[in-house]
Parts: sequence; C-alpha cells; structure tokens
Amino acid sequence: MYYIGIDLGGTNIAAGIVDENYKIVSKGSVPTGRMRPFEVIMKDMADLCKGLIKESNLTEDEIGAIGIGSPGSLDIENVRVLYSNNIPSFDNTDVGGELKKYFPNIEVYIENDANAAAYGEFLAGAAKGCKNAVAITLGTGIGGGVIIDGKIYSGSNHAGGELGHTVIVAGGEPCTCGRAGCWEAYASVTALIRETEEIIKDYPDSIIHEMIKKDGKVSGRTSFDAMRQGDEAGIKIVEQYIKYVGVGATNMINIFQPEKLVVGGGISKEGETILAPLREFVKGEVYTKSSESLKPCEVVVAELGNDAGIIGAALLFKQAK
Amino acid sequence: MYYIGIDLGGTNIAAGIVDENYKIVSKGSVPTGRMRPFEVIMKDMADLCKGLIKESNLTEDEIGAIGIGSPGSLDIENVRVLYSNNIPSFDNTDVGGELKKYFPNIEVYIENDANAAAYGEFLAGAAKGCKNAVAITLGTGIGGGVIIDGKIYSGSNHAGGELGHTVIVAGGEPCTCGRAGCWEAYASVTALIRETEEIIKDYPDSIIHEMIKKDGKVSGRTSFDAMRQGDEAGIKIVEQYIKYVGVGATNMINIFQPEKLVVGGGISKEGETILAPLREFVKGEVYTKSSESLKPCEVVVAELGNDAGIIGAALLFKQAK
Repeated sequence: MYYIGIDLGGTNIAAGIVDENYKIVSKGSVPTGRMRPFEVIMKDMADLCKGLIKESNLTEDEIGAIGIGSPGSLDIENVRVLYSNNIPSFDNTDVGGELKKYFPNIEVYIENDANAAAYGEFLAGAAKGCKNAVAITLGTGIGGGVIIDGKIYSGSNHAGGELGHTVIVAGGEPCTCGRAGCWEAYASVTALIRETEEIIKDYPDSIIHEMIKKDGKVSGRTSFDAMRQGDEAGIKIVEQYIKYVGVGATNMINIFQPEKLVVGGGISKEGETILAPLREFVKGEVYTKSSESLKPCEVVVAELGNDAGIIGAALLFKQAK
Repeated sequence: MYYIGIDLGGTNIAAGIVDENYKIVSKGSVPTGRMRPFEVIMKDMADLCKGLIKESNLTEDEIGAIGIGSPGSLDIENVRVLYSNNIPSFDNTDVGGELKKYFPNIEVYIENDANAAAYGEFLAGAAKGCKNAVAITLGTGIGGGVIIDGKIYSGSNHAGGELGHTVIVAGGEPCTCGRAGCWEAYASVTALIRETEEIIKDYPDSIIHEMIKKDGKVSGRTSFDAMRQGDEAGIKIVEQYIKYVGVGATNMINIFQPEKLVVGGGISKEGETILAPLREFVKGEVYTKSSESLKPCEVVVAELGNDAGIIGAALLFKQAK
C-alpha cells in the first residue's frame, strides 16, 4: 500500500507518495495561489495527487490514506480548517470532505504542519526509534512538534506544542503572537536577522557591512559567513544567537526529557557549526546535568528537510484513533 | 480494596489509606529523621503503614497496592531511589524491595512527589475528568506535574516535568539548579520573599517594615497582607509576582494546551486574590486568545492540599504498565 502526504504552505502545495518503508516514491508541487477560492485551491491539490498516482503507475485502490499538514487552527477529528492566517479562503472549511469529492474511497487526515514534520522525523528521520521526542524548526518563526509515546501530542484544543511562543525574556522583544520576549522573538531566523542588524551598528569595521552592500540584505547566513571569516561582530552575533536557541532548547528538555531534540529549519543546514556549541550549552544547563546514571537527551539535526512534512502527513493514519 | 499512599518528605513521612472512591479513610505521619540510615527510616515507614491498617480495622489482604511519592531521581520500573538530596541514606537504594520485606504480598510503586500530587488532583481533585492537565506547586521551589491522556508524563529518564526550571528571564536571577532566570527563581515563595525584601528598600514608608519588626521575618504572606491594607509596596510586589507566575503559566499552556492548569502550594491558599488576576493575565497572553471557537484552559486552585500526594501515590498502580 502507498500513502499520500500533502504539505499545504502559503506559497506552494507540496505532495508525495510514500511507501510502506516510509520512503517517498514520487513528489511534486504546485503554487498555492493563496488568495484564490477554497474550491479552486482544493482542485489543484487533488489534481497534484492524481498526477503523482499516475506517474507512479499506481491506481487509487493502492492509496491507503491521504494526510494534510496544514498551518492554522484545525479540527483534527472532522478534518477541518478552523482558521488560516495564510490562506484566507480556508477559514472554517471542510478540507477533508472537499478532498473526498475527488477521492471518495480514501480516508483523509489533517494535522498541524509542524506536528506532521515532527512525526515524519520520528517515523523515518532523526528521531526514529524514540518513544518521546521534541522537534523544533528554526525558520521565519519557531515551529514545534512533540512526540509522546510514539504519537503526536497536540493538547486538548489541538493547539498545543507552540514551543516558540514561550517567553524566555520576560518583558523583552515583541512577538507576532502579542507576547513580549518569546523564544521565537530571539531564536527564529527572523530574530537572527534583527540581531545581526542591531549588533553591527556597534561594529563599523565589520565585514558584514560589505556583505550587505553586496547581497542587498541581511540573511540568516550573513553572521555565520562573517564568523567563518573571523569577523568579531559575526562571532558575537552567532554566540548570542546559539545561547538563545539553547535557553529555549534546555527549557524543552527540562519539561519533556525527550530522548532526542531534533533541530530543523533553514539554519540547521549550518550543521555542526550550530549543533556543537548548542550541545555544549545545553549540557551545562540541563536539570539532569549532575545525574551520571541518566542518559542525556541527544540534540540532533533534522534529517528529512522538507520531506519530513510530506512523510509525516502521509502516515498520519498510523496514529489516528 | 484499599490502597496506601506515602508522601516521603525531608521532614515527615505522611501516609494514608485510600478507598475505591479515592477518599482517605485514615492517615498519619512520623518524623523522617532524614539523616538516619535507610533501613531505620524504612522500618518507621512500614510501621506507620501497619499502624494505619490496624486502626482502620483492615487486614493486609485488603491492601491492593502501596505507592510512594518521593523527591530525588528515581528508577520507577525497579522502584528504586537513585539520588536523594534531602535524605542522604536513600541514595541508590531498593526502596520497593525494602518495603516488600514488611509487605511481601503487596505491590509497591514509586513516583516523583510532584507527579504523585498532580495525579491525585487529576484523579480526585481540581483536574478530575481531564484528559490533559498541568499542576504546579508554588512553594520553596516550583514543582510541576503533567498528566497526558490520563497518565503521569515524566519523560524518558523519569526526570521530565521540571516546569520550574525553565528560564523566563534569560541571564536573570540565579536558580538552585545552576541556571540563571528560571521560573522558580521568580515565582516560587522563596522568590516572592526575596522580591519583597528588595522592593521595600525603595518604600521606606511601607507598612511592610513594621510587619517585619513584628513577625521577625518576611514570609510569602507579607506582601499579600500589606496589599490588603492598601500598602503601595505590597500592591507592587503582588502585581509583579503574579505577572511572573503568569508568564510561566502561559508558557505551560502554550506548550501543553491542558484542559486545566492547577495551582497549588502554600500561596494558593490566597485563593481568588491570586487566581483572579492570574486568570486575567493568562487570558491576555495565551496563544489561542483570538480563537473564539477553542475552549480556553481553565486556571484553578488545587483542591486536595497535602492529601493530593497521598491519594496520587496510593493509586499509582492504576497507571502502571
């Protein structure tokens, strides 16, 4: 049997067919056209799936389930989107029912996109074999997914796991959620860019000023690239950024004591450059640091990249009640 | 059938016999004598239990299980204490095996004391009927217990749920755990006392100075009592304290989206004086504040006081695998 996973984003709808071994056998994407009507977007989603089935030489009888990873507030039980910030026409819609018009014999599941990605890493990636794991995605914001006893934990409103919206600096930087000092406001890529722009003001000789002239803007890579060239401002920015990532990461470890904390998102492509000092920071901070008999939580890089969301969504049926 | 719950503290060992309706039918306590040898303390614990069985006119055949709520690092599966800060002779001991010498036919369970208290509130107190709940105890430190799907969540090392050791002010006040800026260092009763002592320095006319002369020291009640008399410093201290409690409480709600957040510990005896403004703060901060279709997490006072730990410990067998 095969399973289809859909990653519904504000820019693109990505989908893939996943086999029994949790491998993607084919995948593709179409632009979301996020301001278009719900039914039109859903037809493109269905066509994308039908195209993948055809190009894989499969029939719909061989598709065991379809799962959608979606942003916004969801009604998991009824496969509905309650509220979508990015795709306005999806507010209060029967996504599952609409997709079943095209696939009447296939069960459709839905889950928060960050949770689906965490589930993908748990089933087939960096957290494979864990009982309890926490996945964070350092991107525009900080996404979080929590796996407990092999299942996605999302709380009573399916709105839990908002790990990025936990305050680490009370009264600090304003966050998009309305709070002040959230982890996301200090350790997302957006925050790193702000921190870079702020700190270089004190370093008029930093090579970052030259890099900005050349690239036209600051990115999440700028400070890392400058650091690699020995730039003092770059070193300071990266050190401070990793400390903020580590403060929140340690908080999550003290709360969940997961076997693994999986770090994903664009910035995780820096690999050991970020992971090695992050591990060192966490090791010195975590509550169980003095307990030699306990196995410490491993801090690891996400392995599946964007495929995590597709694989996790495709296999949502496995954890559905 | 009846069940015995034991709350092993650094000062006293409290125990109670709990019936099928989760009510305590008899209870008692003995001093821990925490510097004494392991076997001697365990004999007192066993004698306490035997005394309670006798005074309740029960026989050992009618006791279905014994559970111990204990501080320190534990090996739950093997009913062992790995490390005990408060009772040195309990380091690396077979607590279950030792108690079974006195009760060879009764199963013995062990759990972290804060988790046992949370489980008691879940089974018989303020979080009764919840699927997911978080309990916090504002005391010398901040204890935390997390109930997920009706079971205690304690993570891969049985060391999770250290909710008090999550940083809310990066680089802030030193915490007993070695980190800087933990929730516990801002919202425990110990922290409230420190905050009271600090803030009154700026208020030479505060009635708190008179109260200290009379009582000999600052307590967790001092600022609340001063506030009730309209004292400016008292009002400021309590407002700031409730904000710190609220920052961490909101963090926990954003992470877990529990149906209820149960607030216990000595300071919770202030009741609505602390709960009403805390609820108001959380309502304005929580991630789901704009989602009218979602049922918000209820912030409630713990109902069972010290009995929570006894009831939760007695009934540990219910959630054991």
